[in-house]
Amino acid sequence: MSKITKQQFNQIIENELPWATDTGMRLQSIESGEAVMTLPYHRRSVRPGGSISGPHMMMLADACMYAVVLSMTGKVKLSVTSSFNINFLRKPSESDLRAEGKIIKMGKRLAVMEVSIFSQEEIVAHATGTYSIPPDRSL
Amino acid sequence: MSKITKQQFNQIIENELPWATDTGMRLQSIESGEAVMTLPYHRRSVRPGGSISGPHMMMLADACMYAVVLSMTGKVKLSVTSSFNINFLRKPSESDLRAEGKIIKMGKRLAVMEVSIFSQEEIVAHATGTYSIPPDRSL
Amino acid sequence: MSKITKQQFNQIIENELPWATDTGMRLQSIESGEAVMTLPYHRRSVRPGGSISGPHMMMLADACMYAVVLSMTGKVKLSVTSSFNINFLRKPSESDLRAEGKIIKMGKRLAVMEVSIFSQEEIVAHATGTYSIPPDRSL
Amino acid sequence: MSKITKQQFNQIIENELPWATDTGMRLQSIESGEAVMTLPYHRRSVRPGGSISGPHMMMLADACMYAVVLSMTGKVKLSVTSSFNINFLRKPSESDLRAEGKIIKMGKRLAVMEVSIFSQEEIVAHATGTYSIPPDRSL
Repeated sequence: MSKITKQQFNQIIENELPWATDTGMRLQSIESGEAVMTLPYHRRSVRPGGSISGPHMMMLADACMYAVVLSMTGKVKLSVTSSFNINFLRKPSESDLRAEGKIIKMGKRLAVMEVSIFSQEEIVAHATGTYSIPPDRSL
Repeated sequence: MSKITKQQFNQIIENELPWATDTGMRLQSIESGEAVMTLPYHRRSVRPGGSISGPHMMMLADACMYAVVLSMTGKVKLSVTSSFNINFLRKPSESDLRAEGKIIKMGKRLAVMEVSIFSQEEIVAHATGTYSIPPDRSL
Repeated sequence: MSKITKQQFNQIIENELPWATDTGMRLQSIESGEAVMTLPYHRRSVRPGGSISGPHMMMLADACMYAVVLSMTGKVKLSVTSSFNINFLRKPSESDLRAEGKIIKMGKRLAVMEVSIFSQEEIVAHATGTYSIPPDRSL
Repeated sequence: MSKITKQQFNQIIENELPWATDTGMRLQSIESGEAVMTLPYHRRSVRPGGSISGPHMMMLADACMYAVVLSMTGKVKLSVTSSFNINFLRKPSESDLRAEGKIIKMGKRLAVMEVSIFSQEEIVAHATGTYSIPPDRSL
């Protein structure tokens, strides 16, 4: 069972990452070690050509990884990305994006995750990342 | 010599990537295969803890890579990131970031670049990325 | 259905990559877009501390990706790795390794794959990689 | 000044990584935070097509990173690769490879490095990697 609810995560995003909230990004579902987030299509997020930009896909993938971490640790304020790798697979269509994240390994100090991003059921990007988990997890 | 001027690149950002312009991101200098960009410190770009967020550093690095590509190809509309890898090295201080990008290899179809990001003269992140270059470069 | 059999792949390894054969690496099963390879524990492959070395895990993951590509294209002589990324998750035990590879996206020019490596049922490394596929696939 | 000599490093490789020694890999020079290693061209290391294989380039890059770490820490037995990323840039010619490694950031717990690999003065691959440094560095 996730140690954080969908509502709690969306509240964290809203309070602490206002620039992410501005994109319309939302957590849709969360289980222990799994999270689904969406990013609505918006003119403000596009690159030349009309599809959602690479940096917005990276932002979505990173937020989805953060949700996966919190699903397993509960609310940890200063867990931070330590590395991030992404392959862009095809141009998304001009529609919303859906990110599916899952844990690869949850360690005491490091969490490793992967995220697949879909545009209308087709995979458009795949990311892996590591989060560093602070030794003292209490807030 | 760069095939694009600083002014031209900043104009592209302003016209085509309004969300990047909103962050205050600016190209500072450009040579063939080298570019320097800055991202001013702003409350809207931070993560919990007060330093500039990971996704903003990724956005800065990606834009800097784009400048490096354009310095060598001239204005190419649909050159796109195909992969991106970043290591976050330390927490930036609450100050502006400076990204220094340079070409590793410029091929016919693929450009490979690296970007170092500095906060007050200390390196805080290092990224490598590849850009796919369309066969027909004319606009 | 895989476009190549287990026997054909092991034959390719034996004929063309003798240094891989020397490690004892073998394909165990192959389906379209999926492959399982094993690397037996051997003193010649270890690092200080007694577990199988990082480079041997990278070699295993790369070979497993190659099997995944060939399962979808049939025998393509000059398909080559264009990028490779790996996270080492924990020290393997002093035992055989098992790599499970699967396709993330098969494109006309680029294949993207991931491989998880296990030591006694525990994941010890996770890799993603891209293979460049030559335009003319015939031999 | 390097905390380890060229001779000491080549001795470590010979004693502890016999499979690396078998490839003919040698450290050529070492300074604090910088190392140059070579891998002689040999039929046993090639891939179909006749050039040195990807896994051999990864092995060379990883060993070069290890030299860079030891140049700054002195002999640390259990420093291990925690992540590794490589872009293959062009097919090497049928000749020796030369790897030039340098430190990006040396932290207390993590070292980040990059390595460029050259074949006859042309860059053929570029890697970045992180090494985890054990808290107690003494042997």
